[in-house]
Amino acid sequence: MVQKNFVCKGDICYSKDKNTLQTCKDGYLVCENGVSAGVFAKLPEKYQDFPLLDYTGKLIMPGFTDLHVHAPQYRFRALGMDLELLEWLDTHTFPQEAKYVDTDFARKNYARFVEEMRKGPNTRGCIFGTIHRQSTEVLMELLEEAGLCAMVGKVNMDRHSPDILRETTEESAAETVQWLADVADKFPHVKPILTPRFLPSCTDELLEKLGDIQKQHHLPVQSHLSENRGEVAWVQELFPKSKHYGDAYDSFGLFGGENCPTIMAHCVLSSDDEIRLMKERGVFIAHCPESNTNLASGIAPARRYLTEGIPMGLGSDIAGGTRCSIFFAMAEAIRVSKMRWRLVDESLAPLTIPEVFYLATLGGGAFFGKVGSFAEGYEFDAFVLDDSRYDNPGEYDIAQRLERVIYLTEDSEVLHKFVEGRQLF
Amino acid sequence: MVQKNFVCKGDICYSKDKNTLQTCKDGYLVCENGVSAGVFAKLPEKYQDFPLLDYTGKLIMPGFTDLHVHAPQYRFRALGMDLELLEWLDTHTFPQEAKYVDTDFARKNYARFVEEMRKGPNTRGCIFGTIHRQSTEVLMELLEEAGLCAMVGKVNMDRHSPDILRETTEESAAETVQWLADVADKFPHVKPILTPRFLPSCTDELLEKLGDIQKQHHLPVQSHLSENRGEVAWVQELFPKSKHYGDAYDSFGLFGGENCPTIMAHCVLSSDDEIRLMKERGVFIAHCPESNTNLASGIAPARRYLTEGIPMGLGSDIAGGTRCSIFFAMAEAIRVSKMRWRLVDESLAPLTIPEVFYLATLGGGAFFGKVGSFAEGYEFDAFVLDDSRYDNPGEYDIAQRLERVIYLTEDSEVLHKFVEGRQLF
Repeated sequence: MVQKNFVCKGDICYSKDKNTLQTCKDGYLVCENGVSAGVFAKLPEKYQDFPLLDYTGKLIMPGFTDLHVHAPQYRFRALGMDLELLEWLDTHTFPQEAKYVDTDFARKNYARFVEEMRKGPNTRGCIFGTIHRQSTEVLMELLEEAGLCAMVGKVNMDRHSPDILRETTEESAAETVQWLADVADKFPHVKPILTPRFLPSCTDELLEKLGDIQKQHHLPVQSHLSENRGEVAWVQELFPKSKHYGDAYDSFGLFGGENCPTIMAHCVLSSDDEIRLMKERGVFIAHCPESNTNLASGIAPARRYLTEGIPMGLGSDIAGGTRCSIFFAMAEAIRVSKMRWRLVDESLAPLTIPEVFYLATLGGGAFFGKVGSFAEGYEFDAFVLDDSRYDNPGEYDIAQRLERVIYLTEDSEVLHKFVEGRQLF
Repeated sequence: MVQKNFVCKGDICYSKDKNTLQTCKDGYLVCENGVSAGVFAKLPEKYQDFPLLDYTGKLIMPGFTDLHVHAPQYRFRALGMDLELLEWLDTHTFPQEAKYVDTDFARKNYARFVEEMRKGPNTRGCIFGTIHRQSTEVLMELLEEAGLCAMVGKVNMDRHSPDILRETTEESAAETVQWLADVADKFPHVKPILTPRFLPSCTDELLEKLGDIQKQHHLPVQSHLSENRGEVAWVQELFPKSKHYGDAYDSFGLFGGENCPTIMAHCVLSSDDEIRLMKERGVFIAHCPESNTNLASGIAPARRYLTEGIPMGLGSDIAGGTRCSIFFAMAEAIRVSKMRWRLVDESLAPLTIPEVFYLATLGGGAFFGKVGSFAEGYEFDAFVLDDSRYDNPGEYDIAQRLERVIYLTEDSEVLHKFVEGRQLF
């Protein structure tokens, strides 16, 4: 359906801000030219002629953003979870990612990842590919065909990985430039994002070149930050002059600021100084609770980040995380925040349902602009859910139904989905 | 199907002991008179005439035991998870459980719980009802009809709950005796278990009477132990003469020993003394990782319990837990053990896949006798799973496939199930 003016009727739920859940039972959500015209208890006169999609009794909420996910790792998700980060990368991840040198293999496997994302509640994603330029372009093509909005990165790695998954410095930079030329204006909804894997994978020389490319192309950036103990200690060795992990990125111009929108995943072990710099530069944090637990990294102080007003969303971090579901990421974000509060630091209260819902929608969506809300003027990303299988929905209000959905719903249960006003199904 | 002699062919997986996973690709699992005759790489001559159920390429594993679950709480699972235990009981649980005074309401709602259990991988459960004798009998009837094996408890509560969910001491004891008379020999596969809710719900007088009933009827016992900080502090006030929570149960003869098989759920905050007593008395621990996180109770030292050889299984603890799935309980058991190791006590290593699989099968099954394994002589509880949706099962061995299944599978994906050799579907 390409029609972009219509009205959805149902039980509507969205975040006004990080503390405020807005709900409207039997409400009207208006899409005008692909953008939300707002939510109304009674349909205004001027929209009476818009086609009505009647989802009475169903939940309607803004599409989710997965702010950190590795598409090539989807195929081996939920394997090797007995290892910590660096060992897991060497044993499972690098050998698997090396296979994506073959574009046929990439097409077949990326198609599965994209299909899971298409059918689920996510309308946006910030996605890692591999070092392979052409396979990364295949991933972008599949996402575009699926109707999703995404930022996708060809990964840069010129050290500390096996021969089969390592570029020379020159090659890494040149391939990135070529990739940017190849995909420029090719995909209306899928855009490139600069993706140095993480600091141990990139020499100073490469980071310098990537800083130049960033400036020249005004590219956003995504990478990893202060995730796991072994990794953080290693980065300190590799960048002895840097005050902290973030400072090392910053010294190459790859750490936020007005002209360099940046996502850093994890931030489990960030120091006060690093947090201060993230805040100053408006760096987005991709909070990946399941992955941080699976790889025994720890628990990121998400409550502190929220309170300090650092931009933040949720990441599945497939395959450090096992599940693509951002519903599950919300539940895990709450769960780990409770454990951190109980076991580590009672000054940081557990996250609440409105807060994790905000992170999944507005929080992560903000990296794409006006995305993740039904307030007037937001891109019309939405999905429809039937929660009647939870036995007795009539008994509960929308906020309570949202809580149940967060804990119980599978991505495969989405009934209808819209991206920028386009109905995918 | 009532036939109890047959052979299942497929990719077989079971625990030999807590550290050892046994697997057999394209193996033969023989059921003879409802009991396992063992697993064979080549089918022995004497079983050649048994009917063959061909599940080639599918996983076959022993049925799971849910060692701690509240059937009446199924209907409101995943609600109020922002509260801790005592507040959550007052706000959500007690008002909901009070509704089960109505046997029609009970039949309708218990049917939903039983249907979810029937369709999933669990073949056994130790289940809490409510204080209501007749509704508890309805639950037992439904479980029997579904073909499941279970122990079910009419709950005892004579204090510290609202009027609508409280018995007098006399009434609680008399109703229990009546219930035991009513259900005696009525259900071949569903048996009564004595169920004082927890110490704050039972006066000394009631506990004394329950101790007598236990002795007279040789009943097993299930209850809660050292779950949440507020609860443990309260028990100390209520039983000032007891050395610890477990000691209070013990003083009424309700804490294990040869003639009193006992399950205690949670054991998050058990002291060294309490642990010593559990070990001495062979008390089974129902480890409920999801619930312990949701209600911010903490993380039970499951590694210690395993090492000390205390009998233990897994509990969903619906509705402190949100998900009935014992697959999910396994994944959460690993996850919380990693957080405990990382954040609290590095001397207790995270649980492994073979260990949590043992807990879900042999560990909990042992409360029912020879249950939870395919070794010769074990009751034939089994289910069949198709894991082909995980993209590329051909690449992985059975142990790796088991890891993926634990993290990714939903209960609804079970294809076939057998209880004591009876095929349910």
